[in-house]
Amino acid sequence: MPNPDPTAAIAPGLIDQQYARKRVLITGGLGFIGSTLAHRLVAVDAEVVILDALLADSGANPHNIESIRDRVTLRIGDVRDGEALADLVPNAQVIFNLAGALSHTGSMANPLEDLDINCRAQVGLLELCRHRNPDVRIVYAGTRGQYGRPQYLPVDERHPLTSADTNGINKTAGEAYHLLYHEHFGLKASSLRMSNTYGPRHQMRHHRQGVIGWFVRQAMEGGTIKVFGDGRQVRDATYVDDVVDALLLAGARDAAAGQAFNLGSAPIALGELAEAIVKAAGRGRVELVPYPEASRRVEVGDYVADISKIQRLLGWSPATSLDDGLARTVAFYEQHKSNYW
Amino acid sequence: MPNPDPTAAIAPGLIDQQYARKRVLITGGLGFIGSTLAHRLVAVDAEVVILDALLADSGANPHNIESIRDRVTLRIGDVRDGEALADLVPNAQVIFNLAGALSHTGSMANPLEDLDINCRAQVGLLELCRHRNPDVRIVYAGTRGQYGRPQYLPVDERHPLTSADTNGINKTAGEAYHLLYHEHFGLKASSLRMSNTYGPRHQMRHHRQGVIGWFVRQAMEGGTIKVFGDGRQVRDATYVDDVVDALLLAGARDAAAGQAFNLGSAPIALGELAEAIVKAAGRGRVELVPYPEASRRVEVGDYVADISKIQRLLGWSPATSLDDGLARTVAFYEQHKSNYW
Repeated sequence: MPNPDPTAAIAPGLIDQQYARKRVLITGGLGFIGSTLAHRLVAVDAEVVILDALLADSGANPHNIESIRDRVTLRIGDVRDGEALADLVPNAQVIFNLAGALSHTGSMANPLEDLDINCRAQVGLLELCRHRNPDVRIVYAGTRGQYGRPQYLPVDERHPLTSADTNGINKTAGEAYHLLYHEHFGLKASSLRMSNTYGPRHQMRHHRQGVIGWFVRQAMEGGTIKVFGDGRQVRDATYVDDVVDALLLAGARDAAAGQAFNLGSAPIALGELAEAIVKAAGRGRVELVPYPEASRRVEVGDYVADISKIQRLLGWSPATSLDDGLARTVAFYEQHKSNYW
Repeated sequence: MPNPDPTAAIAPGLIDQQYARKRVLITGGLGFIGSTLAHRLVAVDAEVVILDALLADSGANPHNIESIRDRVTLRIGDVRDGEALADLVPNAQVIFNLAGALSHTGSMANPLEDLDINCRAQVGLLELCRHRNPDVRIVYAGTRGQYGRPQYLPVDERHPLTSADTNGINKTAGEAYHLLYHEHFGLKASSLRMSNTYGPRHQMRHHRQGVIGWFVRQAMEGGTIKVFGDGRQVRDATYVDDVVDALLLAGARDAAAGQAFNLGSAPIALGELAEAIVKAAGRGRVELVPYPEASRRVEVGDYVADISKIQRLLGWSPATSLDDGLARTVAFYEQHKSNYW
């Protein structure tokens, strides 16, 4: 009996090989996750094009691709610029659509910028795919922020999307456009709803894109990690290489099309996470402090991802323990601190 | 014991009086619902300002306010134009935010236009309220399209918002911004998720904003009402005066702030609705025809609204029977046909 999904036979460990000589576009490819993905793709001779606007505070960092700079095509441009997209989108076989505004508090201060990046640009990209590249595969970077305050744990993909900030509303709309373009126009689009991703190449200059990198910096400087509240709020931390595995699977497997998947790995209380970081860094200390008002307002409570859907449909599982991931993260920044501090 | 919500004592029948001499802004006020609302407000000497862009095919019609033209301030302008909003928003005590792109199929053809009206302009308006008019009350025009294909009937407000088209995604985001600005900044914003509203002043030139007006026109011309499929798909029709009642309540009651409410009235199969229209018009006939492809794709199946939340919190109930509503609708167009055909 023929296998109805020929891509289902690809074992996760062999997934990288599917990208050999593939034309891959990574929006936001100078950022943390995009650049880590680029390294993996270059290693199998994929033809990688990176589109990145190098926005201030976005996490984009040219050093992220320094060692592969001559093996990727870098286009400095903005996903909000239709011409930049029109030059690149029609030629791609796979698009990892990672460009996005990430800050929860920033989205409340500058909601229109967040909207233009996370909604308007997404529709522009999808329209180009629909009209000029209907066979492309697209993987969208969703976020657990789409769920807002969890109504139950662990959160599965059927949980209502009741975002608690502008960023979450816009990311929800951005994802919905992708899935809609699958349903209406047959685009092979999928979304990964990421929780707290950590690891090498994350920006370390501010805390507005997640706390883990910021905690690592405090510890490595021998400083004090300030954990808000009682430190018992649960996050679901995923090491970046595991996220890249999931991206590669979602961009190769037919079963991903039209689907949104949770990512997650190691649910842990923020206080314990901070202690683990101090241990990995070999220095620093942890202090509990009251919530600042702006942070309290966007705090959504405990989060634990139910990842059974992506395990079942794509065969993905996180492979990196928290201690291993933190050790590798600290080792990376020990070596490359000057480019990130 | 003092009443915690002084506005709760306002009986629905007396709600109009709450608007005497109030400064009220109606975006989209030349349209079907907005202009009907304007008539009610003018009758109690509210100071009504209408902002309307008179977009082609939008349903805006200057004839809708002909008889009250000298009693309202009309500003031809677009909610996408920040300056037009900045002139009007800071002065309003109540904003009925009815300007929106309504077409499901149109939103798939022109998704960016739909996004700019239904998302981007909404954020612009809310930012103005937040910074320059934080005490304003705002009522947003939501839609049952936000629910997508119902997962159960009747649909209550906790039903997942899984819109099946771009318009629904954008209206969902537009509503979410309103409720978020209540939660974060204390704006007294609410949303009414309307189903099929019908009655006088609806545009009659095309069928892209709902079928009821279009059916009425076919019948009044002695023509054939074409009902797609088997005619058993259920809609929840609400007469426009009842919708205006709900708008006035939501704009006056403290209990509305931060809430989304379903509207609905008379669940009925489209085939039966068409027969009722033929009866009200005294002419025409009904024919079942296969679904055109574009309509089939945005067809979301039966819809029945659970309206217990707005009954409980605001004391609203629809007062107009389907037969009465259709009779008044036909009578209106008999008299004013030349301005709508």
